[in-house]
Amino acid sequence: MAFGEVGKFVEELPFAGRLSEREKDDLIAGTKAVTYAKGEHIHGGNENCTGVVFVNKGCIRAYMLSEEGREITLYRLYEGDFCMLSASCILEAVTFDVFIDAEEDTDAFLIKSSAFRQLTENNVYVENFALHTIVERFSDVMWTMQQILFMSMDKRLAVFLYDEAAKKGSNILKITHEQIARYIGSAREVVSRMLKYFANENIVSLSRNGITIEDKNKLLALTK
Amino acid sequence: MAFGEVGKFVEELPFAGRLSEREKDDLIAGTKAVTYAKGEHIHGGNENCTGVVFVNKGCIRAYMLSEEGREITLYRLYEGDFCMLSASCILEAVTFDVFIDAEEDTDAFLIKSSAFRQLTENNVYVENFALHTIVERFSDVMWTMQQILFMSMDKRLAVFLYDEAAKKGSNILKITHEQIARYIGSAREVVSRMLKYFANENIVSLSRNGITIEDKNKLLALTK
Repeated sequence: MAFGEVGKFVEELPFAGRLSEREKDDLIAGTKAVTYAKGEHIHGGNENCTGVVFVNKGCIRAYMLSEEGREITLYRLYEGDFCMLSASCILEAVTFDVFIDAEEDTDAFLIKSSAFRQLTENNVYVENFALHTIVERFSDVMWTMQQILFMSMDKRLAVFLYDEAAKKGSNILKITHEQIARYIGSAREVVSRMLKYFANENIVSLSRNGITIEDKNKLLALTK
Repeated sequence: MAFGEVGKFVEELPFAGRLSEREKDDLIAGTKAVTYAKGEHIHGGNENCTGVVFVNKGCIRAYMLSEEGREITLYRLYEGDFCMLSASCILEAVTFDVFIDAEEDTDAFLIKSSAFRQLTENNVYVENFALHTIVERFSDVMWTMQQILFMSMDKRLAVFLYDEAAKKGSNILKITHEQIARYIGSAREVVSRMLKYFANENIVSLSRNGITIEDKNKLLALTK
């Protein structure tokens, strides 16, 4: 979908067939194309009712933030995904809030909360779509929670490195220990210690530029 | 609601007004009154599609179980609550499973999965209700996760003891360290050590019969 085509976006919504012409017009009026720069803060904290974000290109990340500023990544959304929790203010069953940042430069469509609220209140199919999308994220969060609570640290780190290399299509990962710690819900010190252990085992090598995976089979074995 | 009155139960469902007479009849045929003894396993593991459980009296508890058998309590349901995750097999957006036990002797109505599946597939209002209920549980789980991940251990234990005393209306808690560890998502050893610390501070006293809260103000201060 080309960037900026709000009308086309609305026509292709999964619930478009359940919308009246009036509802479509209101939705088009309440939707705009937006871009977020890599690292930009999208939702959470002061912006408590951003609206529904549809990722057209790029990647956004949802996370929790403690009072002390510790982050836990809950899930990532990619091209074609809808972010509903950024419109959680209009869904009374959602009593928590998450933070959402752009993880890559991101093109998106943003449906304003006011427009989406009107729709969900009057059209059960739209409300259904919103709830359904949130339940999918619930599944993601449960998976993350399982990882954090039950997986031993070495396994968590191995899974992360292995997945990251597969995703980037490269054995060289330009990422800081601090970033890894955030992604896997641990502390930087713990990650650094474990990486040193992996390096001693010749599974990875460490340099200022990042982490190079030296033995993919050994790494894979650790993920089992 | 008196135990066993399936017809009345169906008439009083939040979505009853959206059901046809035929749907009501099918639902009555697919619902039965059940009782669960305290500690009885209701759902999870082998029973992977129990159905929708409505708690008429008592309390049921949902938890996660790791491969090593460690438990994390996700939420509890009381009189008037619906348990949807015990029918998760019929909701494709739910890709995880939880374990559910009776925490007290419990009277319930059980809507069979087959009957509920037919309804959700054909009636958007019923599907909406199911999704809405699950999103509420998502909120509970996020709260639990926040507790587990971000709250220091002494605070978690203090919050648990304080809430438990308030719930029971008594300063004497007949509960094992093992049970507390499960509730707050920790290990028995950690709980025992922390309780000993609380006892040394004259916040609680420990005996074979359980835990007595000796200084409620001190305990309360720890929860802040």
